[in-house]
Amino acid sequence: MPSISKKGQLMPQSPIRKLVPFAEEAKKRGIKVLHLNIGQPDIETPKIALDAVKNNTISTLAYAQTEGSETYRKKLANYYLKQQINVSPKDIIVTTGGSEALTFVMGTIADADDEIIVPEPFYANYYGFAHAYGVKIVPIVSHIEDNFSLPPIDEFEKLISSKTKAILINNPNNPTGYLYSKEEIQKLAAIVKKHNIFLVADEVYREFIYDESEHHSILQEPGLDEHAIIIDSVSKRYSMCGARIGCLVSKNKDVIKTALKYAQARLSPPTYALIASEAALDTPQSYFDEVKKEYVSRRDLLISELRKIEGVKVAKPNGAFYCIAELPINNSDDFAQWTLEHFQFQGETVMVAPAAGFYATDGLGKNQVRIAYVLEKESLKRAVKILKEALKSYNS
Amino acid sequence: MPSISKKGQLMPQSPIRKLVPFAEEAKKRGIKVLHLNIGQPDIETPKIALDAVKNNTISTLAYAQTEGSETYRKKLANYYLKQQINVSPKDIIVTTGGSEALTFVMGTIADADDEIIVPEPFYANYYGFAHAYGVKIVPIVSHIEDNFSLPPIDEFEKLISSKTKAILINNPNNPTGYLYSKEEIQKLAAIVKKHNIFLVADEVYREFIYDESEHHSILQEPGLDEHAIIIDSVSKRYSMCGARIGCLVSKNKDVIKTALKYAQARLSPPTYALIASEAALDTPQSYFDEVKKEYVSRRDLLISELRKIEGVKVAKPNGAFYCIAELPINNSDDFAQWTLEHFQFQGETVMVAPAAGFYATDGLGKNQVRIAYVLEKESLKRAVKILKEALKSYNS
Repeated sequence: MPSISKKGQLMPQSPIRKLVPFAEEAKKRGIKVLHLNIGQPDIETPKIALDAVKNNTISTLAYAQTEGSETYRKKLANYYLKQQINVSPKDIIVTTGGSEALTFVMGTIADADDEIIVPEPFYANYYGFAHAYGVKIVPIVSHIEDNFSLPPIDEFEKLISSKTKAILINNPNNPTGYLYSKEEIQKLAAIVKKHNIFLVADEVYREFIYDESEHHSILQEPGLDEHAIIIDSVSKRYSMCGARIGCLVSKNKDVIKTALKYAQARLSPPTYALIASEAALDTPQSYFDEVKKEYVSRRDLLISELRKIEGVKVAKPNGAFYCIAELPINNSDDFAQWTLEHFQFQGETVMVAPAAGFYATDGLGKNQVRIAYVLEKESLKRAVKILKEALKSYNS
Repeated sequence: MPSISKKGQLMPQSPIRKLVPFAEEAKKRGIKVLHLNIGQPDIETPKIALDAVKNNTISTLAYAQTEGSETYRKKLANYYLKQQINVSPKDIIVTTGGSEALTFVMGTIADADDEIIVPEPFYANYYGFAHAYGVKIVPIVSHIEDNFSLPPIDEFEKLISSKTKAILINNPNNPTGYLYSKEEIQKLAAIVKKHNIFLVADEVYREFIYDESEHHSILQEPGLDEHAIIIDSVSKRYSMCGARIGCLVSKNKDVIKTALKYAQARLSPPTYALIASEAALDTPQSYFDEVKKEYVSRRDLLISELRKIEGVKVAKPNGAFYCIAELPINNSDDFAQWTLEHFQFQGETVMVAPAAGFYATDGLGKNQVRIAYVLEKESLKRAVKILKEALKSYNS
């Protein structure tokens, strides 16, 4: 039998995927599983986007333009302008999800064995995209005690070498929900300029900012044009995860020129999804206001309920729709599997994402889980109650 | 300014892309450009697929299943069964176009510096996908004099080393239109078994087989289950290039398990396109009969018209909708650009794809172009007439 590549053998599996068979088994036993583990919002997609696809008049479903149509990129540039991000259509390459934008960025800025520094915990698939290209993720730990804020800059300094090509952040952050402040972005801007490396910001949760906080994009930072690369996506903004449309934004012409070559090889992003995404840009503000109101009330409920459980520590998130909770357990992989395999409370159980999968450093996150608040409040409240009962039972 | 990766700098550009600005300029000067260069058919997409999307009832456009839904993969397996290819849903991973399937295969079977042998001329993007993963394409030349049939097996033997992980073919072939015979597939099967490597077949043009020929899939070859990987796509079959849905098919469980990890990292294929693709499987046979009839008559027209031009040599294709034509010129890159920049015949000109971009060996294909017969017959006839006049003018 011919052998699988070493890269393929070592390609990491999604931390949640391992639990899926146990969730399926639980469902087969008639147990309802409340999913606190996923990033798929239950929020409806804007009607304007759904209708655009329903009313399409396509007769030959042709390739779209490789980098996205001029029209769509113009409207996107206009969207960014409203966010005080000054870019033009030629600074944008439309991609098949934020995932593909990340892949193009890896190929554009790093060779095999080059390094990208990422504060951990981080979105687990960063590790997969880097691994596929032979690029090394160098983690730098952020702590629940500090609300997962930016690690001290001298910690970054210690890790930067000639192999370092970029610092990658997710702002606001999945899995922590932390929103980097303007001051933190400025610190990062200074260090990437000092060392002449890129600053890549995955800003797909830009709209999900709560309380009095404001999002500060890396492209709002003066003098950072040659260093800044934004990863973006329609997935969360318009609750359109299944569209698979994202983009890469940079004012660095060489970055765009190079990423475009990767884009050409795969021909084009999906045409129907482009129709939905272009229409979605006309979503009325009232949609976002309602969504934001809903997430704030879910977050407040989740955090206050979690804090009532003895031994649970949780940092209050200012953005996105996740939080990391520290539980009174030693091994959240084991606990997450146990809740699916051996536990139920009034016919229901919960599925959580063990946090170790969001850390690159071995041994970290073992008493933490990621909780997504993408369930409506009634289910969310019940889910936390079940979690509480599960912890009691697991620890006895 | 931070620097672009070496990989990014060396990433090849699509051979056609370089000509696009010249075509745009010609159009601005009021000249109509007849595109013989593209793989985008003008054929209509089956109504059943278009309607399925128009009539969708999605309210939250959610992620699809990473590997494609069980339902879709069951229907796909049934489609393959009708093609005498015996596979089950678990042997299939649905991808974002054949492009993504190729990328997953690269990551699954080859590490950086490993080699994949490909008969040239070949689909130019193979080179890009390999390059992105640091994998080397080792070309083995096929000749217009032999109708681009399989090069002798001892030529393959000479190139196989411990670095060789697979032989990759495109059957029927883009850009040559050549259909590999059952005997040729058997020869390839024998050599990959002997050397314990993979045989990857890009069979996206499976339905486009003309005259009395029959397609022989690598998965119809007995004893090849552990070696065979099929790349497939809905793009050409249903004239749905813009869907971006393809798949990877293999009975090798390790291949599927590994490719699935790459699939998980990018989350899912595009949901709307999946709806169209699943519905397309119910396209009536009459659609394919008509499409085939149309392509046969286009091919016959194209080949006979080309053969009337002095100094033009062309191999008659048995499949797909391309042919390679040898022209009485020395540099088809120059000629292709010249027809856009400096030529017109009664207000029209043609755009052809220079063939050098389909060869990995330097210097080959310089007097060849790829012609796609995706235009309706009237335009096609006019395009060949223009080509004839252009050659006359270029050579004088």
